Amino acid sequence: MPFQPNQDDQKAINTIRTLALDTVNKANSGHPARFFQCNPSNPSWVNRDRFVLSNGHACALQYVLLHLLGYKVSIDDLKQFRQLDSITPGHPEVGVTPGIEVTTGPLGQGFANAVGLAIAQAHLGATFNKDGYPLFDNYTYMFTGDGCLMEGVSSEAASLAGHLKLGNLIAIYDDNQISIDGSTSIAFTEDVAKRFESYDWQVLHVERGDDDLKAIYEAIEAGRAEKLKPTIICLKTTIGFGSRDAGTHGVHGNPLKADDTVEIKKQFGFDPEQFFVVPDETKKIYGDIAARGAEAEKKWQATFDEYKGKYADEAADISRRLEGKLPDGWEKALPEFKPSDDAVASRKLSEVLLAKLSTVVPELVSGSADLTPSNLTRWKNAVDFQPKENGLGDYSGRYIRYGVREHGMGAIANGIAAYGPNLMIPAIGTFLNFVSYAAGAVRLAALSHLRVIWVATHDSIGLGEDGPTHQPIETVAHFRALPNCNVWRPADGNETSAAYYVALTSTHTPSILALTRQNLPQLAGSTIQNANKGGYVLHEVEGQADVTIVATGSEVAIAVEAAELLGKQGVKARVASLPCWEVFRAQSQDYKLSVLPDGAPIISVEAYTTMGWSEWSHAHVGIDTFGASAPAKAVYKKFGITGEDVAARSQKAIAHFKKLGHPVYSPVSHSFAI
Amino acid sequence: MPFQPNQDDQKAINTIRTLALDTVNKANSGHPARFFQCNPSNPSWVNRDRFVLSNGHACALQYVLLHLLGYKVSIDDLKQFRQLDSITPGHPEVGVTPGIEVTTGPLGQGFANAVGLAIAQAHLGATFNKDGYPLFDNYTYMFTGDGCLMEGVSSEAASLAGHLKLGNLIAIYDDNQISIDGSTSIAFTEDVAKRFESYDWQVLHVERGDDDLKAIYEAIEAGRAEKLKPTIICLKTTIGFGSRDAGTHGVHGNPLKADDTVEIKKQFGFDPEQFFVVPDETKKIYGDIAARGAEAEKKWQATFDEYKGKYADEAADISRRLEGKLPDGWEKALPEFKPSDDAVASRKLSEVLLAKLSTVVPELVSGSADLTPSNLTRWKNAVDFQPKENGLGDYSGRYIRYGVREHGMGAIANGIAAYGPNLMIPAIGTFLNFVSYAAGAVRLAALSHLRVIWVATHDSIGLGEDGPTHQPIETVAHFRALPNCNVWRPADGNETSAAYYVALTSTHTPSILALTRQNLPQLAGSTIQNANKGGYVLHEVEGQADVTIVATGSEVAIAVEAAELLGKQGVKARVASLPCWEVFRAQSQDYKLSVLPDGAPIISVEAYTTMGWSEWSHAHVGIDTFGASAPAKAVYKKFGITGEDVAARSQKAIAHFKKLGHPVYSPVSHSFAI
Repeated sequence: MPFQPNQDDQKAINTIRTLALDTVNKANSGHPARFFQCNPSNPSWVNRDRFVLSNGHACALQYVLLHLLGYKVSIDDLKQFRQLDSITPGHPEVGVTPGIEVTTGPLGQGFANAVGLAIAQAHLGATFNKDGYPLFDNYTYMFTGDGCLMEGVSSEAASLAGHLKLGNLIAIYDDNQISIDGSTSIAFTEDVAKRFESYDWQVLHVERGDDDLKAIYEAIEAGRAEKLKPTIICLKTTIGFGSRDAGTHGVHGNPLKADDTVEIKKQFGFDPEQFFVVPDETKKIYGDIAARGAEAEKKWQATFDEYKGKYADEAADISRRLEGKLPDGWEKALPEFKPSDDAVASRKLSEVLLAKLSTVVPELVSGSADLTPSNLTRWKNAVDFQPKENGLGDYSGRYIRYGVREHGMGAIANGIAAYGPNLMIPAIGTFLNFVSYAAGAVRLAALSHLRVIWVATHDSIGLGEDGPTHQPIETVAHFRALPNCNVWRPADGNETSAAYYVALTSTHTPSILALTRQNLPQLAGSTIQNANKGGYVLHEVEGQADVTIVATGSEVAIAVEAAELLGKQGVKARVASLPCWEVFRAQSQDYKLSVLPDGAPIISVEAYTTMGWSEWSHAHVGIDTFGASAPAKAVYKKFGITGEDVAARSQKAIAHFKKLGHPVYSPVSHSFAI
Repeated sequence: MPFQPNQDDQKAINTIRTLALDTVNKANSGHPARFFQCNPSNPSWVNRDRFVLSNGHACALQYVLLHLLGYKVSIDDLKQFRQLDSITPGHPEVGVTPGIEVTTGPLGQGFANAVGLAIAQAHLGATFNKDGYPLFDNYTYMFTGDGCLMEGVSSEAASLAGHLKLGNLIAIYDDNQISIDGSTSIAFTEDVAKRFESYDWQVLHVERGDDDLKAIYEAIEAGRAEKLKPTIICLKTTIGFGSRDAGTHGVHGNPLKADDTVEIKKQFGFDPEQFFVVPDETKKIYGDIAARGAEAEKKWQATFDEYKGKYADEAADISRRLEGKLPDGWEKALPEFKPSDDAVASRKLSEVLLAKLSTVVPELVSGSADLTPSNLTRWKNAVDFQPKENGLGDYSGRYIRYGVREHGMGAIANGIAAYGPNLMIPAIGTFLNFVSYAAGAVRLAALSHLRVIWVATHDSIGLGEDGPTHQPIETVAHFRALPNCNVWRPADGNETSAAYYVALTSTHTPSILALTRQNLPQLAGSTIQNANKGGYVLHEVEGQADVTIVATGSEVAIAVEAAELLGKQGVKARVASLPCWEVFRAQSQDYKLSVLPDGAPIISVEAYTTMGWSEWSHAHVGIDTFGASAPAKAVYKKFGITGEDVAARSQKAIAHFKKLGHPVYSPVSHSFAI
């Protein structure tokens, strides 16, 4: 039966408008759901519809809706909008507010997250649904504004979503023609509808988006009906509808004036003297939606119970994932290496690992931003995640072809991880240098506690001929500075296994694995257990050392070579490997001092900027300029990062500290956050 | 007369093909103009046509063309392709190879650079051209592949270019349907032509792009004729044309096999036993182009000489810019402040500065990514850079509305700066946190030595209610780690003047100015001269100090407050301000030690990650998590960054070092790159 909006619907909408108004005014700061399937009393029900507010600055409205739907967001919480430690912060944050699916605000991210959420549903549905058992069949709804659509990250995600034929994705475009600078006519005059048609989306229009509920309903209906295309509904709206400044950018980032608020409330039939009011009819509408959602979850649970009987293996897999557990014994798939094993590039070690892990960790879903043959992210016989219509794979596939879209890939992977924290684990590949293109998405993975694994190959000047445009210098320092982000730079096979071990078990932290193009020898002294600590002594000397050389990744073997040379020169050199600063930093002070002790200069070797190394070492061998285009060995030689050069530079550092003539203390106890 | 391609043209093209082949084969690494107005004997002639190879990995081809045209790129240089210190690196680098306009390789950047180059021409033309004196009327040609078009940064730039009606821009899209992962059908099935129509570009098609020279000529002709739209020519091509692997991704990143090379050369009528051959007919074609270009420059010079007589002021302005000089006495516009002056937010100080500088530095062109009222980047009465057809400004305007397109803005600004190193100086605004969206572009500005000034406001938790999604933590560390990038965090009015002074005089370095939303007091001890050194002592004590507190930006006033409190507690606390690490690092060792001396613990205070501070301080007050949404003062209190808290934390650090019981040495002499 077609939807006939009535007076109560209109009142409900006016309630949202006036509540949002009160919420924003209270903070003195800041900016229809009949289809929606959710159970506010269990926000983590796995088959709920997902809603993403990509223009996160409009979150007052979302908090109001969550309140009306019966999520644990009270009127008091609304009154604490944008106040310290409230659950109603200035932009939506997943984990802070019940019912928020992803953290938004940085424009364009939510759009791409929604594409990821839709991919996750499509994948889990194709993997687990059986005839009569549609365990995963939710929709993803996303609200987006002009700002999000101007951002490149949403263009990337939209193009891919169209290619993937994500019929489960419905975007509502709040076409209010206003951004912060004023009318969109000053910078954004493209034909958005036509652009989305070019991406192969279904494009629908609602001319009177402020009040034509019926047209909105019908458009959503049509969006749900279209199974082979994502849908965008272009909703012509008036910003600040009801305000005397409606339609201007003046209402974008500021609360309305007191008298304007009064007038709006009157206009919407509300008493301007009363605040935070919810009429009974409105309560009923949202109560009904919530009740329907609770019923739907109950029905889903019954379906799942039956499914367990018929499809025991699949059900066990789902249950395990929902419990947040990796499969028993999965870690046995991590290969161990002996020094006599062949030298192998860590990107190649990663390939072997992904292949092994793919068989024991079915939630692992790999992919690359069009660098598959370089990143080595695709295991043999992997099925591509593709719409089956294009004949290149199907939605049960676990390899995603992201195209040359690093930022989109990062934000989409965030959405995949956000679908359910343990239902899918995305691993995504590009060159380390181009993870920077996705900085906005990596940041949100860290802030949102999402387990996303970046397979970042070609991690230094060791990539050689591609030259300085492709050789990272600052990249690792950047992500080391990002809170809740583990940056790994494994030195050999065991360290690469450790990196994957910690990345997969860090359920609330993204990881960036910096991997080499060039071969690395298997080191004496490296073990998975050692590397799991983030840093350890690889090579010890007897008695008082003259120097400690600490290095990461491909430079550890160079440090070992330097230590050997120094030994021949009568200098006792210890070697420490520091594959992950963040994990090492979390060890005990005693342990850290045992790795990087007082008493002798500590020299670091890393083919990156020296910025940041003062935390661990006194003298830093690195590259504080850009790299160079030449075969890898020639570039290493140019920058003085060879065993011989490091030995010579170590001698220089030892001489410097001898000349100073006083004891040398480890930065571990002499430089710290307080 | 319409162009009639003849045999010589075909031979010229085959020469390029085979030379590119030899170039790539020699390096054993890598990939494979009749309109064009350039003077190879003077690559910096200002009115030359610009050519951008956005898919920079195809640079072998570009080097070959530069050689044929007579730029200082010899056959020997071609033979040194991708070798150490050659002028033919793996991707085109401006400043390394004569005739290269911008550094490309990171996909999508060149596309956006070309938009910037076209904006520069439009602006300079509108500013200086007079009837009969078209001093600036060059075209910008850009070659782009599928990879560039998948990147969001090119979408952003394309949308803006269409809005701006840049008829002087002609893109040639190498539609070879192949990217590294294989056919574009696996991830890139959008309708590119339709997308560019949606941006309001003229879209032209050449079906036989491999060999239909006439159609290509006519399309370029039509592109030049269209004055109100940029043009994209979709050229259907075959990757590895002539090779037996033509049309496959196998020929993308690898040299061809020896026998395949032989066959191709035969097929193109070349002796397979000879290498690096240029037939005379080909030499003539390119020689003619070069001669025509030299003639064109001569004519241009004559026009300019005449112009000097008629428009002396404008001519003097052009000459001054071409000489790379700022106007005499411009620096007098930099305001100085006394401690008794009002507390002002540094974004507001920046606004005052931009307004003053706009009147004396006409090459300064400002703009924002849709945050004008927040970044305060627009001076009163500024004219917007807009096509005059939309009635919102004209091309002589010096304020660019970039839209919500940070990455595009950064890459476009790089193109503006690259037009001529001193002809225009772009200042571009966004929130500091969102400079990260443009990381790829900032990196290329640094690598390419471009003077681009980022006006990065809302620079910390001090932005308050917008919360952790908008509060930078890692951003400044990221860009401090980037070579050749000056990051400024001024503490007050004098330091903001210094930041602009050094940014404008650093002709080969981009700058990021991190500016506050909140008010900052004018500090006693700050002067422009002091701050120009990047770091200095703001507050000295008599006799041996107990502690040095070093801070940046908004935290300097907090450090001063802490020092006062410590003084009352009998602790002698010095205060140093470090507005720009990069500039400070370049000072003499003695000077640095005078600011951060041995003998007492050094405590840093900065409302960011502590990562990196070990270079300067022993104990670091900072934020190694994400921020919080609340009024600024409440957030500062939450993270313990107030005068009182810093005093208490300093006491703790002093106690720590007392307990260690040995002298404390400055990191300046105890931690360094070696």
